[in-house]
Amino acid sequence: MHMVRIRTKRTLFPRTAGGIDVRVRVVNVVILGSGRGGNARRLLEAQRDGELGAARIVGVYSDRPDAPILKLGDTFDVPARFLDPGGYRTKLGGDAERVYIETIESHRPGLVVLAGFMRVIKAPFIRAFEDRIINLHPSLLPSFKGLEAIRRACEYGVKITGCTVHYVTEDVDGGPIIDQEAVRIEDGDTLDDVEEKVHAAEHRLLPDVIARLSRESSPR
Amino acid sequence: MHMVRIRTKRTLFPRTAGGIDVRVRVVNVVILGSGRGGNARRLLEAQRDGELGAARIVGVYSDRPDAPILKLGDTFDVPARFLDPGGYRTKLGGDAERVYIETIESHRPGLVVLAGFMRVIKAPFIRAFEDRIINLHPSLLPSFKGLEAIRRACEYGVKITGCTVHYVTEDVDGGPIIDQEAVRIEDGDTLDDVEEKVHAAEHRLLPDVIARLSRESSPR
Repeated sequence: MHMVRIRTKRTLFPRTAGGIDVRVRVVNVVILGSGRGGNARRLLEAQRDGELGAARIVGVYSDRPDAPILKLGDTFDVPARFLDPGGYRTKLGGDAERVYIETIESHRPGLVVLAGFMRVIKAPFIRAFEDRIINLHPSLLPSFKGLEAIRRACEYGVKITGCTVHYVTEDVDGGPIIDQEAVRIEDGDTLDDVEEKVHAAEHRLLPDVIARLSRESSPR
Repeated sequence: MHMVRIRTKRTLFPRTAGGIDVRVRVVNVVILGSGRGGNARRLLEAQRDGELGAARIVGVYSDRPDAPILKLGDTFDVPARFLDPGGYRTKLGGDAERVYIETIESHRPGLVVLAGFMRVIKAPFIRAFEDRIINLHPSLLPSFKGLEAIRRACEYGVKITGCTVHYVTEDVDGGPIIDQEAVRIEDGDTLDDVEEKVHAAEHRLLPDVIARLSRESSPR
């Protein structure tokens, strides 16, 4: 069993509920994404609707200045900002990595969520937030690691695919699995159909996992 | 789309149903297995209960003389026989392969079903029954190809596994997928629990696939 260690923050004044002293814990969550932000939007909606447990989204960052995900900042009144990824295409440059780490660390995150973040996270970043980085991958890992997982699953001809939330380690898409949801591919489904189903599954799985992790975490 | 070509046999006397001339097709099915024969039993039960479409099980063969699967012959009144696999441990020897091919061919099979047959089928065998050999594998392929798939899935820590029926090609466990069924692994499940669930899924999937293939096949 993979141990969940999540940093939590207590409010200064414990609330009293029914005569019982309740400490209100909050797990700060930072989201990184590169694209449309469908999953980030879903998480912010889940938080608004009280479905995200003790998790609180405190920042949304993107490696692309024009990524629609950044527009969620205004809609949901949460800090959302472009962070320059440096000169590499598939990872973060050395200076950029340092800026990412410092910026994220400033939020004292209990959880860093990669939701469609299209760069590989390297050792210094992973060590900075060890056991606190989770990734959403659009396949039933270990099948179809890497890019374009949905298209490759369709081309392979699988009848069942899905999505996976897992801890991020240096083994790309190979870290411990937290949870998965299956999606059936029906005869006649187009790639668009399958993408839609997988994204719908992601929108159920990711908030559910984050809510669970936020409840399971123990205060330090 | 993988083309299904199944050899079929017509009965001599077409039945008449409601004034419409109906040709009754039968798809002969040969089963190969090495072990307990859980899936072979399930297929024979499905046939008895009229759930196997136009498929008719005409022979059960094993590469192990003491395999319990062979006892199904008496129970279900179907030919069941040990066929000597020759001197190799993981494939069929040259002479043995010829005996296997000739014995199976004598049944004029529309479908050859590998249900827990623990030897790799090689090119001559595959060519003899091209597009008519299907295999049942206890994982959601392409994950966990090869032996001990259930144990390896549990050890990896997947939350969803399952079973796959696929056409047999020279690419071991890599042929075109016909259908799959997912199985959820719950926290606390033992290996035994997961094996039981996967076998239950196999017992649903395999008869269903054979019934469908038998109906989709077009007479030659």
